[in-house]
Order: sequence, then structure tokens, then C-alpha cells
Amino acid sequence: MGGTNTDMGLVSENGNIIQRRNIPTNAYTELEPYVRDMMREIEDMVKEQTAIDGLAVQLEGIGIGAPNGNYYTGCVDNAPNLTIKGVLDFGKEIHKYRDVPVVLSNDANAAAYGEYVYGGAKGMKHFIMFTLGTGVGSGIVVDGKLVHGSTGGAGELGHNILIPHGRKCSCGREGCLETYTSARGIVQTYCELSHCDPASGVTSKQIGELAHQGDPVALKTWEVVADQLGLAMANSVTFSAPEAIFLMGGPAQVGEPLLKPLRAAFEKYLLNIYQGSCQIRMSELRANEVAILGAAALLKMKN
Amino acid sequence: MGGTNTDMGLVSENGNIIQRRNIPTNAYTELEPYVRDMMREIEDMVKEQTAIDGLAVQLEGIGIGAPNGNYYTGCVDNAPNLTIKGVLDFGKEIHKYRDVPVVLSNDANAAAYGEYVYGGAKGMKHFIMFTLGTGVGSGIVVDGKLVHGSTGGAGELGHNILIPHGRKCSCGREGCLETYTSARGIVQTYCELSHCDPASGVTSKQIGELAHQGDPVALKTWEVVADQLGLAMANSVTFSAPEAIFLMGGPAQVGEPLLKPLRAAFEKYLLNIYQGSCQIRMSELRANEVAILGAAALLKMKN
Repeated sequence: MGGTNTDMGLVSENGNIIQRRNIPTNAYTELEPYVRDMMREIEDMVKEQTAIDGLAVQLEGIGIGAPNGNYYTGCVDNAPNLTIKGVLDFGKEIHKYRDVPVVLSNDANAAAYGEYVYGGAKGMKHFIMFTLGTGVGSGIVVDGKLVHGSTGGAGELGHNILIPHGRKCSCGREGCLETYTSARGIVQTYCELSHCDPASGVTSKQIGELAHQGDPVALKTWEVVADQLGLAMANSVTFSAPEAIFLMGGPAQVGEPLLKPLRAAFEKYLLNIYQGSCQIRMSELRANEVAILGAAALLKMKN
Repeated sequence: MGGTNTDMGLVSENGNIIQRRNIPTNAYTELEPYVRDMMREIEDMVKEQTAIDGLAVQLEGIGIGAPNGNYYTGCVDNAPNLTIKGVLDFGKEIHKYRDVPVVLSNDANAAAYGEYVYGGAKGMKHFIMFTLGTGVGSGIVVDGKLVHGSTGGAGELGHNILIPHGRKCSCGREGCLETYTSARGIVQTYCELSHCDPASGVTSKQIGELAHQGDPVALKTWEVVADQLGLAMANSVTFSAPEAIFLMGGPAQVGEPLLKPLRAAFEKYLLNIYQGSCQIRMSELRANEVAILGAAALLKMKN
């Protein structure tokens, strides 16, 4: 569930997305019609797949990755980027239509768990996922379990204050990692280095293309971003000593212009006792599948 | 086990220290004689308590909190502040004398677990302990379990880089929390503010006394330290959303000159979604008991 679109998928036991649908999240301002239409699409997927298989699809549950999704309550809590406002109790609403388990968490937690169940983190007990996009999210797995914390809101490393009294963040504070390594933060760094106007509309994707063409300011931008992200990642290791840190999201797709200086910065900032114990890896899930596989993976969670 | 002394205690089931002994750690350069003498003291405590009780004390196990102690391997790994060098396999050595479970972890982890089993963190699923002293240590409990991480070296928040390119740290890097909020870091801040020479020998304890006498530079010192520690604590909340953060160790004993601005700084730096969900609390264990109770608590750990 994103602010603009809701991607849905029917996921088989082995992690294949065998049906897909989507509805425009921002066409809704109330939960009831939104869930009604969502459930209509889900039932349609089940029906179509049943026709293809020639035997009835058993729906085991519904997993949801959503902004401000709280695993403990099953609610989306006042997500600022949704047109449906308030505290949204999905389980209660969905159970009007189907009596199946509903598991909900925030999108970055779901992505991390998707990596654990279906991706490159299979079998890992300790890892951290950083998601770069409009914001910066994270999901943390300790001892094979997602860390939800006492409130359900654990794993917000995008709002770790990286540089005290640094850039103003949308959260109202200053210096959060997100202000430097989100798509917007990357654009801001590029504009600072090239003296361009952020309002000119240059995107992090274009800065990635420029870097691949050898543009020195674009290359420098990714080096600066890598230094900041590498520091944040090294700091996260002092917490849980993960065996890997995964990276995903649009800006991470730039590849080597980010990854090469990122690995160097990470090693530079890593405390000596952790040297060699933690790899930086790209998510092994496809960009257009991670949201759905992450949501589905939530149903595999053991408490 | 500290660099100077090794404190030992016989701890009853309900967390009372009923016998105490100590030996000078720095009188040893080899593990074998050290463990031999340690075991002699342990057997002596058992014997004396057996005489007092009039029935045989059953020794259930031996817990050890030690610098660079690794829970997974049961070894102390090249602790720079010990005169006994190398990788020290305590379990193997102890089992020459007694066939009981031996559980070892680093001192800050042990302190955190002591708080969980015998102190103010009883019943908490998620909390973090910061220990201020010569260095800054931490122990992290998630879902009721100490976080050891993939290497056994998790929970080194004293080496979280708080201020990029900040003070030089003994670990070889720059800006670690420890360089600001350890006893030495506090003295350095005081000397910077008062233009005194750190070699003058002023201690963090004296700076505490000066603050209680109303000395403005000492008060300002604790405010600066509180701001730095509050930021580090607020950052740690984005990781595991703990219900409390505990504080212990010599410099923390100063009390309100630190705690009052610390609470204010913590609230200021805390991400809005966590407001009101996490308390700062002082350790409820006595300073002269925490090391022994922490070590004993390790035996209560469930895997």
C-alpha cells in the first residue's frame, strides 16, 4: 500500500506472484470503500487462479505492507502520505469479507522480511535492510525475528540523526539520515555541488544516469551520499552486529557509482571488532515484486 | 572481571550476594593460574556458606562479565585492558575444576541482563542499558533477550559515531559517543570550557561535586554531556523502540546536574512517533553489586 497505488498479488507457497492487481490508493478518503474494492480484486484473483489451476485456491491469509503500519495493532496509524486519514483497522474491516489471518507491518519491515523469506537473507539470523526512496526506511532482523520494539515502531533508521544540527527534516528535527540519502536528499546534494536550483526538477535517477556518463558532479554526489550512508550503516552495526546489510529502492539502483564508495565508506567507519563480519548487499528481490513478496512474507512470521 | 580487580560473589536464587571475594586481575599474565586462584576463592565461598547454612550449597553455574567477553564462544577476545593477553577460553579452563555451566558475556551486556533479572527492567521486553565509566558500554534487550548479533559483539553503542569527524577515539576512529560521555570525555569537555589542562588531574567525580556546589562551568559541562548522551539515546530508540533506557556507572551518579538536562535533550531529539513511549531511568542495582549480579543473571538466560 503506497500513497499513490496499492499493488496486490496472489503469492504461492514458494514465493511466486501468480496474479496481480492494483487500485489507486489516492482515489479513496475512507477505509470502507477502499477495503471493499481491495477485497473485490483479491476475490477476483482467487477466482481467476482457481479457473487456471482447475482446483480451488486456498487463501491462507492477507499480508499488508503499509506506511505507518503497526504490527502489534494491525492498524495504519495516521500516515501523512495517505488520503485515507486516521487510524485504520484493516483486520476488522477485512474480516467483514473473509475470515483469514491479516498481518500488517510498515513497508520497510515487510521488505526486510520478504528478503528473509524469499530473497538474499534466507537463513540469516541478523541483518538490516535500508530502503532508499522518497524517504529512507529500515527493517531489522535480530535472532531471525523482525524487531518491532515496545510500540511496534522500531526500525526507523531513516530518522537516526546522522549530522547534529544538519539539514531540516520533514519530521521537524535536523540532520536525519533521510535528509541526506533519500531521493530528495540526493538531489539537494547534487544541487549544492552544482549550484543548480532544486526546483529545476532534476531527479535522483537522472543524477544516476549522469554519473554513468562520467559527469564529475554527479559522481561526487554519489560519493557524498555513500559516505553518509556508509556512516549510518557502520553505526547500525554497533547495535546488532548483523551479518549483512541489504539495500534497496530507486536511488540504490544506480549501482557502482553508489556501491563502490559505499563499501569503502562502510569499511572506513566500521569499528575494528566488526571488520570482515558484515557485507553490504543489494536486495535480491525484483523492484516490482518486493512490496508484494514482503507483505506475503509477513504471514510466515513466528511469534 | 575488570582490568584491575576481579570481584566474585556467591549469589542466591533470589539475587542476594551472600559471599564475596576478590583477586587482583592485573597480578596475572596467564589464564591457568588466574582461573586456579579464582576457583580456589569460589570453592572457599561455597564451603563457608555451606558451614553457615548447615547444608551443602549447590553451585548451579558460573557467570562471568568481562571486557571483550563473547557470549557465543565463551572466550574473552584480546581485551586491551587486561594483563592476560590473547583469546581466553574460560569454560575449558574452569571445567578442569568444576563441571558446571559457564556463561560469559561482556560487562555491559551482563549489567543489562542483571537489570532485567534483578533490577528495574524486570518484565520489560525491550530496553537498553548505557554504562558510563572509563569507556561507554551498552547492552540491548529485544523481545526479552540480550542482543548478541552474528558475532557476539553487538551492543557497542559507545562506539556509535555521534559527531562525524569529532574527537579522536581510542578505537582509532573519530566522534564516537565514548569520546564525549566517558569519564575522560567529560573531563575533556570541562577543560575545554574552563581552559584548564586535562593533565591537571581533575576527575569527572570532582566535576560532579563542583556542579552540586553551583559552579557554572561544571553545570555547563553536564549540560553539554547531557545533550550528547540524549542525542545518542534518542538515536538508539529508532532502532528497537525500547520502553526504557537505563543508565549506570560512575559519571551517572552525579544525578540531577546530568539527569535533568538529559531528559530535556532526549525529548528534544526523540522522533515524534516515540514521544512518551520511552523513559530514562537509573539502574536500580547498587554500584558495588551490579557486576556480580549481572554475571549471575547470565545463567538465567534462555536461548
